[in-house]
Amino acid sequence: MAEPLVPQVSHALEVLDFFGIAVFAISGALLAAEKRQTLVTFIFFAVVTGVGGGTLRDLLIGAPVFWVHTNATLLICIGAALGVWLLSTRRIAASALDWFDAAGLASYATYGAAKALAYGVVPVPAFAMGVLTACFGGIVRDVLAGEPSILMRPELYVTAAALAAGLFVGLNLLGVPIWAAAAAGAVAGFGLRGLAIQRGWKLPAYRK
Amino acid sequence: MAEPLVPQVSHALEVLDFFGIAVFAISGALLAAEKRQTLVTFIFFAVVTGVGGGTLRDLLIGAPVFWVHTNATLLICIGAALGVWLLSTRRIAASALDWFDAAGLASYATYGAAKALAYGVVPVPAFAMGVLTACFGGIVRDVLAGEPSILMRPELYVTAAALAAGLFVGLNLLGVPIWAAAAAGAVAGFGLRGLAIQRGWKLPAYRK
Amino acid sequence: MAEPLVPQVSHALEVLDFFGIAVFAISGALLAAEKRQTLVTFIFFAVVTGVGGGTLRDLLIGAPVFWVHTNATLLICIGAALGVWLLSTRRIAASALDWFDAAGLASYATYGAAKALAYGVVPVPAFAMGVLTACFGGIVRDVLAGEPSILMRPELYVTAAALAAGLFVGLNLLGVPIWAAAAAGAVAGFGLRGLAIQRGWKLPAYRK
Repeated sequence: MAEPLVPQVSHALEVLDFFGIAVFAISGALLAAEKRQTLVTFIFFAVVTGVGGGTLRDLLIGAPVFWVHTNATLLICIGAALGVWLLSTRRIAASALDWFDAAGLASYATYGAAKALAYGVVPVPAFAMGVLTACFGGIVRDVLAGEPSILMRPELYVTAAALAAGLFVGLNLLGVPIWAAAAAGAVAGFGLRGLAIQRGWKLPAYRK
Repeated sequence: MAEPLVPQVSHALEVLDFFGIAVFAISGALLAAEKRQTLVTFIFFAVVTGVGGGTLRDLLIGAPVFWVHTNATLLICIGAALGVWLLSTRRIAASALDWFDAAGLASYATYGAAKALAYGVVPVPAFAMGVLTACFGGIVRDVLAGEPSILMRPELYVTAAALAAGLFVGLNLLGVPIWAAAAAGAVAGFGLRGLAIQRGWKLPAYRK
Repeated sequence: MAEPLVPQVSHALEVLDFFGIAVFAISGALLAAEKRQTLVTFIFFAVVTGVGGGTLRDLLIGAPVFWVHTNATLLICIGAALGVWLLSTRRIAASALDWFDAAGLASYATYGAAKALAYGVVPVPAFAMGVLTACFGGIVRDVLAGEPSILMRPELYVTAAALAAGLFVGLNLLGVPIWAAAAAGAVAGFGLRGLAIQRGWKLPAYRK
């Protein structure tokens, strides 16, 4: 009875969450591989990248942190790190890191915004939760690795997360069914990020 | 009924909060301008600098995070970023960044300590909440931008926040009315930081 | 009545917590001394390193943050910073920083896992809480100081925390009394870290 009521996010959307965890964990481990790190660092980077954004989202919206009451989430991240460690990364195409990251970005941005709305968060912060969920893990990964943060590069990265989260929240406000809004948001975000990767699209920098 | 009771901070003090958000958001956007970043980075830096310290404070004292249940706060930060992007920064005096930051620092240190006391936090941690509220957003901004953190410079920066928060908490313990204690804290903190900017005052470094 | 029930961790284990706070605070202040910083930076580093890991743990497991409702914890950190500032660091053996850190690491890893279990966290995340409690303060200290993070070095550091937390959680699952499991975890973690310091043991890096 003392338990807080935990709003339920549609199960269809939870698939986006698991997908985001796995692909972000792989992207974290791939950065560790690129930097010739140890297995412990592989695991740490996989965990931080996999659960970092969702952790911040849950703290901010007052939800129980999603990976604290289940063994599965961390085991997925550890499994992803072991997988990248054991497989030769040469078998993974050079651009794999970017594409995994793009898929995680679009999934997580949509799911993050959906979870925030399910917790009664109003639209503008719910949109911000989507962007944060998608970008925060990668930002922490880059800061820990001493890489220039994705934030400081002109690529359409945060922008793609903003498109996914914004489209989802906007369609939701217009009364579009949640699964259709989620599909539209995730596809649009992935599409924009994919085009940015392939064609090198960039935002204009400040020049005054 | 299931709602937690949310202590109310005096409305007069909330003005300090809005002021802190706006000037810190501007200081974040000005750093993005200095670094020739894109509009998305302007917004990200404005948000992180504007709400970062208060977010950490609210998480630590167990308060609902202040910007999650209103659209206004993030819109203020986004507006500040757009304003800095659209105006030529040349029109903003070179030292404007420092002075905006000083005003935000003093306001936020006082308001942060006041909110902590309102939530029943004991004096030493309440003082620390004031310092954190004032400094944390700027520290994250600097880490993300790859700048040397304000923490590592000998200027009277954290010290000015500590003066504002400490004076407020101390006067409060002595029974001084809250508005008088807040005014004294904010003015003293702004004055010390201002003198440090103008005269280049520095703390002595460790030399043994 | 509205108060959440706060599970109690055995008092014997709380000694590990105080010990962890003090030695990590000293390690933070010693880094500030090495970097020729001001007294304010000494205090900031002592506080961040001393309470950083436990703060993240408490936020993640939904516990009230341990230093917010007592004046003692911050005063210990401030005292540690003043002590290091006043004493000539020459009197502290050159390797003291490493050994203090090793003792804090083993204590905090064990205590962090124990507190998580006391809050009903399941084994894998409880193990992760031990590792985080032990490593997070030092990681933040290094990021703020612009040092290469301990995470990116091949030394047995995170590994020693993982041994302490893992052994404690494992023995606990096997039904070993809590004080025996805690002693075994802390001694094993300190032993492994000590051997790594003395003999320069390293983990193999990824080389495919």
